[in-house]
Amino acid sequence: MVPTVEWKQGAVRLLDQSKLPGAVEFLDCPDYHTVADAIRTLKVRGAPAIGVTAAMGVALGAQSISSTDYPTFSRAALKICDELANTRPTAVNLFWAIERMKQKLESLRGEPVLAIKRALLSESQAILEEDIALCRTMGRHGAELIRDGDTVLTHCNAGSLATAGYGTALGVIRAAWEQGKKINVIADETRPVLQGARLTVWELMQDQIPVTLITDNMAGSLMRQGKIHLCVVGADRIAANGDVANKIGTYSVAVLAKAHNIPFYVAAPYSTIDLNTKSGDAIPIEQRNPIEVTTIHGSHPVAPTGVSVYNPAFDVTPAELITGIITERGIFKPQEILEQFLG
Amino acid sequence: MVPTVEWKQGAVRLLDQSKLPGAVEFLDCPDYHTVADAIRTLKVRGAPAIGVTAAMGVALGAQSISSTDYPTFSRAALKICDELANTRPTAVNLFWAIERMKQKLESLRGEPVLAIKRALLSESQAILEEDIALCRTMGRHGAELIRDGDTVLTHCNAGSLATAGYGTALGVIRAAWEQGKKINVIADETRPVLQGARLTVWELMQDQIPVTLITDNMAGSLMRQGKIHLCVVGADRIAANGDVANKIGTYSVAVLAKAHNIPFYVAAPYSTIDLNTKSGDAIPIEQRNPIEVTTIHGSHPVAPTGVSVYNPAFDVTPAELITGIITERGIFKPQEILEQFLG
Repeated sequence: MVPTVEWKQGAVRLLDQSKLPGAVEFLDCPDYHTVADAIRTLKVRGAPAIGVTAAMGVALGAQSISSTDYPTFSRAALKICDELANTRPTAVNLFWAIERMKQKLESLRGEPVLAIKRALLSESQAILEEDIALCRTMGRHGAELIRDGDTVLTHCNAGSLATAGYGTALGVIRAAWEQGKKINVIADETRPVLQGARLTVWELMQDQIPVTLITDNMAGSLMRQGKIHLCVVGADRIAANGDVANKIGTYSVAVLAKAHNIPFYVAAPYSTIDLNTKSGDAIPIEQRNPIEVTTIHGSHPVAPTGVSVYNPAFDVTPAELITGIITERGIFKPQEILEQFLG
Repeated sequence: MVPTVEWKQGAVRLLDQSKLPGAVEFLDCPDYHTVADAIRTLKVRGAPAIGVTAAMGVALGAQSISSTDYPTFSRAALKICDELANTRPTAVNLFWAIERMKQKLESLRGEPVLAIKRALLSESQAILEEDIALCRTMGRHGAELIRDGDTVLTHCNAGSLATAGYGTALGVIRAAWEQGKKINVIADETRPVLQGARLTVWELMQDQIPVTLITDNMAGSLMRQGKIHLCVVGADRIAANGDVANKIGTYSVAVLAKAHNIPFYVAAPYSTIDLNTKSGDAIPIEQRNPIEVTTIHGSHPVAPTGVSVYNPAFDVTPAELITGIITERGIFKPQEILEQFLG
């Protein structure tokens, strides 16, 4: 499996997902500004992958701080954290990972700066390794929901490319496949940025898991024909009441699934849950450049110049449309989030 | 308004819609084979426009038949009708228009062939003029449903470009606009062929009717936010029980509208109603080339080579999801179709 993000010879190496599937190219980020820019321009995307990348960006930036006294070093490191936190507003894993790096920094107050630099690097590596491990655990839990012969619909890319590896929604699918279940995947192409067509299809084809590509507007018709047995998607943020923000179009899939009595699952690590956000209404939804809608890949126009466009990157699916949330700690109802945290 | 189809100096002149909005180019079809090919390759599309174009194709083909005895002439003309009928399977207006041309041919049995040729040309011209007139009448009826300040969602292109002029769903919007109502239109881009982004947006911008483009997967989220007050779409075929075949994605819009208590209307001429088709299940759904999904405009790839694809051009919306059908004879419930015909 091609690594989404890794530490390589003093740089953060990213698989440039904006080039997929046409080309498998890597971007070596020599400084944290380049990492921030890669997140902003979707060269790396997917909530868990953004978290891991941001943590590595903090570690990378920290290495280049020249000061050797803790207060100056710490101020510079927090500035790096701020720049990385300002890249994208919706996925909470970004803030979670940066917060964890800040806590590591704070916990080492008074230690030699050289040791702190090493510790920050180790912490980012730990976040990466934990991400892969928890995806595998999540996959094992979720695979129980998929029966032999099922056809599973997924939206956007919640795969190894959206994480440090293995994937959340696609991790569940991958685990079922590894258990020998004969499954089929239907991948929504996921306009405007086409993560489904470009990334999910590519990733599943690499693993030889059967996948059929559809445009987003075909899912309802396939559900009506009984051709979809289960939906599983990722999440960018889960509010305390169980509402889920995920890629635009997820809400429509959930409404359609409900109308056809098809189970609709969200697979996401615990770090996606944000107890500070009471409900989905409070989740900030990123509005992106209209050019994503009016062109393909920023260059190939598909609409008249000057047209007015909506381009929200995410939507909110209310808890009542979600059959269950698959996490590394097990599967639970979205309404049970609070008690899971308190218990 | 640019004419979609017209008779021009012994040829059928079509606005080449596959080139829009990048270029306004016309295709002069010197023979009926070229007309058939233009229908097949979506240079002209939209159920009523296909009907008018096919009728003109029959008239054009008839002019070039050299035989002067009726039986030979008639056999050759019916062969032309067959070729034009074999272009696309779903829109019933195609068969309706060709059937009308056949009846005209049959009604003139024994007349001089030169007179029949002239009559067939006149008949195709009559079909064209009637189409524009009935779109205007339909628009007047439907405009009553739109309130000042409403935002109307439409899917695909059911506009002047889908008819001989004025449009069905967009005719309703156009009529409301001409009555001075301040309305906004939300246009689904309508993957894979992007008729919404390329044609509906272009057409409405030409008329300076406010329009905002969205990807198909955004409609649900906008409905949830209360930003859409009414949906109106066209139809390719209406079965006797009121089920409607229309562009892929229409069914999802209807389910979403129902879930948000938003009225969902279909605007279509009476010629779209097919009493020989008992229900939507019996409507043949055209499966088109996967390249429409895996590329943009056949040339710009958006998915890995060799991926499996579904590409149904249409879906069926069951009668119970349709608030009303707007026709040139008035607005009625889909369940009332049979009594409307018998009454």
